Amino acid sequence: MSLLVVGSVALDDIETPAGSVKSVLGGAASYFGVAASFFVPVPVRVVAVVGEDFPEEHVKFLASRGLDLAGLQRVPGRTFRWGGRYGASLNQRDTLFTELGVFEHFEPKIPPAYRDSEWVFLANIQPHLQRSVLEQTRAPRFSAMDTMNFWIEGARDELAKTLAVVNGLVINDEEARQLTGESNLVRAADAIRALGPRVVIVKRGEHGALLFDDDGVFAAPAFPLREVRDPTGAGDSFAGGLMGALASHGALDSDALRRAMIHGAVLASFCVEQFSLDGLRNLTRGDIDARFEEFRRLTRF
Amino acid sequence: MSLLVVGSVALDDIETPAGSVKSVLGGAASYFGVAASFFVPVPVRVVAVVGEDFPEEHVKFLASRGLDLAGLQRVPGRTFRWGGRYGASLNQRDTLFTELGVFEHFEPKIPPAYRDSEWVFLANIQPHLQRSVLEQTRAPRFSAMDTMNFWIEGARDELAKTLAVVNGLVINDEEARQLTGESNLVRAADAIRALGPRVVIVKRGEHGALLFDDDGVFAAPAFPLREVRDPTGAGDSFAGGLMGALASHGALDSDALRRAMIHGAVLASFCVEQFSLDGLRNLTRGDIDARFEEFRRLTRF
Repeated sequence: MSLLVVGSVALDDIETPAGSVKSVLGGAASYFGVAASFFVPVPVRVVAVVGEDFPEEHVKFLASRGLDLAGLQRVPGRTFRWGGRYGASLNQRDTLFTELGVFEHFEPKIPPAYRDSEWVFLANIQPHLQRSVLEQTRAPRFSAMDTMNFWIEGARDELAKTLAVVNGLVINDEEARQLTGESNLVRAADAIRALGPRVVIVKRGEHGALLFDDDGVFAAPAFPLREVRDPTGAGDSFAGGLMGALASHGALDSDALRRAMIHGAVLASFCVEQFSLDGLRNLTRGDIDARFEEFRRLTRF
Repeated sequence: MSLLVVGSVALDDIETPAGSVKSVLGGAASYFGVAASFFVPVPVRVVAVVGEDFPEEHVKFLASRGLDLAGLQRVPGRTFRWGGRYGASLNQRDTLFTELGVFEHFEPKIPPAYRDSEWVFLANIQPHLQRSVLEQTRAPRFSAMDTMNFWIEGARDELAKTLAVVNGLVINDEEARQLTGESNLVRAADAIRALGPRVVIVKRGEHGALLFDDDGVFAAPAFPLREVRDPTGAGDSFAGGLMGALASHGALDSDALRRAMIHGAVLASFCVEQFSLDGLRNLTRGDIDARFEEFRRLTRF
């Protein structure tokens, strides 16, 4: 059940209607790894890069969650920093700044001990780097990737090559439409599956996520929360819960994928209740199981 | 199980990316009544008004679906006409024209034979007229209403008085936010329930609908359709399926409300597959039951 994630570890400045924080732990690999860590009893393997300014307390926290940080490179320079501001609806996000720092020249080096990883998640990085990760791993049972508008616009050919060799794509609705030119999400998912991935998951923020696989469509709602403080990391926490649940159960049939979607939605719901990774810090498996049951009540008819 | 709807019957001009139609049957009471007619074995009672220009073929169609048109007033003047255009995403709608015609001075007169109606739906009309309908009916088991931004902005006091005496509100997400000043939908629903209605249903278009009642929250997805030709009437078809299912089963507990939500979503899904009411014209109860089962597959985990 070994699970590998490759992606960013960052320091974020975040402003939302609920408050603002500076230089807090962020990055896709951080959210993903911590979310997944609640499911897999073996350490989640992380390949990422940070600079000399990356606080030791964050390393300690990630290690305390049982993450395997042998693949976390620390190199001269500054850690990737991102600043964002959310509007009142929390649906619009303005990027205030992006300082790539050491992330600009990040080349994922998969430690030999990680090459047998059975489950691989390629968080949002350049598509050709995502592919290089797959080339460095022996034969994952299941690989999934994220991407973003920047690569859809600027690296479409590379993205197509990566999509051709990956098993799953986790993408948001606007990106799915942009990637395919289809405004209808069902047809967009069909078009993406024709490019390679057997499993396509379309995230829709506060509206939940749709799974498209050989068995058809599954609709996972988002948990109706009374308060959302910080949407940052929701998608990566979703992916972490999803991949962690899959890896822990070891199955890839539609039933397993559907339960994993709900586990993803559970982790995303805890994530957005607090700033940064604070919603995941003190979480227990009991909290997760209780909210999973609340999802049953939410959808039962 | 007598069911009464009060609202508009209209002639619509509609443009969508899938095509355009002119002077087709529309109006909230038309969509609601036809959608509900698949559930209740007794005629759905309609109170509405049309002008001298209203085509007899539409009257015949509504009667053929078993609607009771004793409450359909035909008065001198022109029928309510509305023109709308949808963008590529089908989420934005521009109103091209609104000609109220005879609808401008519509005063719902409930025929004596309708006054014992057990289930009452007040489609989107002036809040004080909605209240006058309730005053003319003896004691419905369950009354629900729709409203719109126009009354939220311009007739808030009247709207509050009507909300205080109605059992259910069916409203879209933006209107729920506007009515309460709460951007969070859970808190918005709480605030609306504090105004009167025990049952609050928040419609979210292609994202489905949320039910808030004494039992908590229920999330009904929208059916992921491969093609949506015309979103007009989706909300009223939803309300018709919902109220029709409730009236036919005669129960108001949370299980009944949840199943009725799915029946509403089923009818809305058929509605938007064709222009005007064409998606409902040749529908059978078998089609409805089959899609209800597809909703089970869509949400099962």
